[in-house]
Amino acid sequence: MKTAHGALQTPFFMPVGTNATVKCLSSEELKELGAQLLLSNAYHVYLRPGLEIVDLFGGLHGMMNWDKPILTDSGGYQVFSLTKFRKITDEGVTFQSHIDGSTHVFTPKTVMEIQKILGSDMIMPLDECAPYPCGHKQAVEALERTTRWAKEAKEAFALLHKDAGAPEQILFGIIQGAAYEDLRRRSAEEIINVGFDAYAVGGVSVGEPVDLMFATLDWVMPLMPEDRPRYLMGIGMPDQIVRAVGEGVDMFDTCIPTRYGRNGTAFTSQGKVVIRNAPYAKDMGPVDPACSCFVCQNYTRSYIRHLVRTGEILGLRFLTYHNMYFYIYLMQDIRRAIDEDTFPAFKKEFLRKYEGAVTC
Amino acid sequence: MKTAHGALQTPFFMPVGTNATVKCLSSEELKELGAQLLLSNAYHVYLRPGLEIVDLFGGLHGMMNWDKPILTDSGGYQVFSLTKFRKITDEGVTFQSHIDGSTHVFTPKTVMEIQKILGSDMIMPLDECAPYPCGHKQAVEALERTTRWAKEAKEAFALLHKDAGAPEQILFGIIQGAAYEDLRRRSAEEIINVGFDAYAVGGVSVGEPVDLMFATLDWVMPLMPEDRPRYLMGIGMPDQIVRAVGEGVDMFDTCIPTRYGRNGTAFTSQGKVVIRNAPYAKDMGPVDPACSCFVCQNYTRSYIRHLVRTGEILGLRFLTYHNMYFYIYLMQDIRRAIDEDTFPAFKKEFLRKYEGAVTC
Repeated sequence: MKTAHGALQTPFFMPVGTNATVKCLSSEELKELGAQLLLSNAYHVYLRPGLEIVDLFGGLHGMMNWDKPILTDSGGYQVFSLTKFRKITDEGVTFQSHIDGSTHVFTPKTVMEIQKILGSDMIMPLDECAPYPCGHKQAVEALERTTRWAKEAKEAFALLHKDAGAPEQILFGIIQGAAYEDLRRRSAEEIINVGFDAYAVGGVSVGEPVDLMFATLDWVMPLMPEDRPRYLMGIGMPDQIVRAVGEGVDMFDTCIPTRYGRNGTAFTSQGKVVIRNAPYAKDMGPVDPACSCFVCQNYTRSYIRHLVRTGEILGLRFLTYHNMYFYIYLMQDIRRAIDEDTFPAFKKEFLRKYEGAVTC
Repeated sequence: MKTAHGALQTPFFMPVGTNATVKCLSSEELKELGAQLLLSNAYHVYLRPGLEIVDLFGGLHGMMNWDKPILTDSGGYQVFSLTKFRKITDEGVTFQSHIDGSTHVFTPKTVMEIQKILGSDMIMPLDECAPYPCGHKQAVEALERTTRWAKEAKEAFALLHKDAGAPEQILFGIIQGAAYEDLRRRSAEEIINVGFDAYAVGGVSVGEPVDLMFATLDWVMPLMPEDRPRYLMGIGMPDQIVRAVGEGVDMFDTCIPTRYGRNGTAFTSQGKVVIRNAPYAKDMGPVDPACSCFVCQNYTRSYIRHLVRTGEILGLRFLTYHNMYFYIYLMQDIRRAIDEDTFPAFKKEFLRKYEGAVTC
């Protein structure tokens, strides 16, 4: 997959940098970890520091000192999940900032304008993400609005990118349809008919059972063009990623490695390890004996538990770093297995070890 | 100055690692920054993770993955400043942990035993730090107890270090005497009479005016042997360090660079800069134009302000890193000026620039 800031090897995982920073990690550490790209949230960056400031940097890359690709979401999901007051019409969504209550409007067109200023390599159109559970009628409305907005986004994108100075950006189409097979298929057909460079499955990871998320993949993946990147938004746990790759997904993003790290939990070859728990107080081994990250090479579970218990930032840093390494190298292992035509065996073995692990 | 973990160039500054971690920074970053050594607090480490766990590591060095010298304080200062309940007798101090209220006893002897387990290169005896302000009578009592405890610490130290397997440690004597010239001189004479490898001035930076702290130096420095390291405990701001070096002080420790960093303030060649303030919102310059640290080479005031305002850990990390660089390179500049016999001119110029700076 090619972008203005370099080629990407698929399938890949995107570290999440909500406020134009991946929590606890510097851009230099992300590169050292082998991150190919990162994701940032348009909603958050639009509110703080605001577009005027991002524009002074010529976009997010300059601001963050990051020269690899960036994907930004549309901000729509955050409007639905974070704001207390919002009003959706066919024109767009009016909402009050969760920070200071100020009023803002996102339309399919302004969301393209915002992401043009952010200068991200991959951008998402405004969509309506239905909640879970959601009635069929409400799901139809969200689906129809998402298709309408997809068309408007594509038109706005074309106009904004006529200009020779415009950043090179890849616009995705987003498939909605909630938990309904008929609607998921209909949304996939409509969005693919509008025509995009790449496609995303949205409206998952909104509280539905994991099985339903995989059912959704069963419904829509066969409809999605194989020659275009396929992105499963907001997923997921390591075992979910491995399973979803088996269904053909190329792109993932999740704040799980950073969020779990800050909560004192490590992902390891032996499953999740809650380092803050008592059994690790005198554990002189590394976070993950099978890991060759900087933290596992130099520090013990005992010391990291001490740091986490005393509320020291270094503890959060170490676990975040390790978890990010785990995710990035999991994707490397997956790509190697695919290259070597051994992915089915890799998947079976990974799930056996990971799901069979006793987590503590 | 020679220690079991290498030689030290004086005068130097010790980054403070209260909970066996210098807040926000890894041991590797401290080395990269050129830190020669660090300080840790016996009181905190004794309570968490506790001596049993530190002993499993063979001491603090192994636990922290730090192979350069460590100085630990006695824990006495923390008992006086952090605990709600404590009882001082001539034998020692009984106190309740500020964490869980559990009861503990520090005596001159146990404080030597604790620091032997910590394995620090430089250790401090239990002393009684009088508050400010403090009546003459109370100050006399604290002084007399400090001298008695110094003798007992020296005896316990000798016994504990008979054993060939004991760590190589340098025991300091601490001069007390509150804000009274007669008592400061008396304490210096008594402690020097007991006889130590190095001497510290304690009971400063407890809320007294800066001028009084320098008066204390005037009183005691002429009495302290020139061939032994002289340590001014818990000091200070950059200008105070430069002035105190002029009075002959060799060793400093302060949590100012880390604490100010976490509060959004940077030390610069132009004085203190409160990065979180509005004037820096669109400031595309580095934290300190005269600084060549990693943060100043790669990031702007505007981005760091954004990180601080959004509560992102990376903002605290960047300012802590920069401030630590500022302190460590200030000490390098001081040593160079001393080597080149230009310290008086350096001091004058530094204070002119630093104190004349408009801070914002």
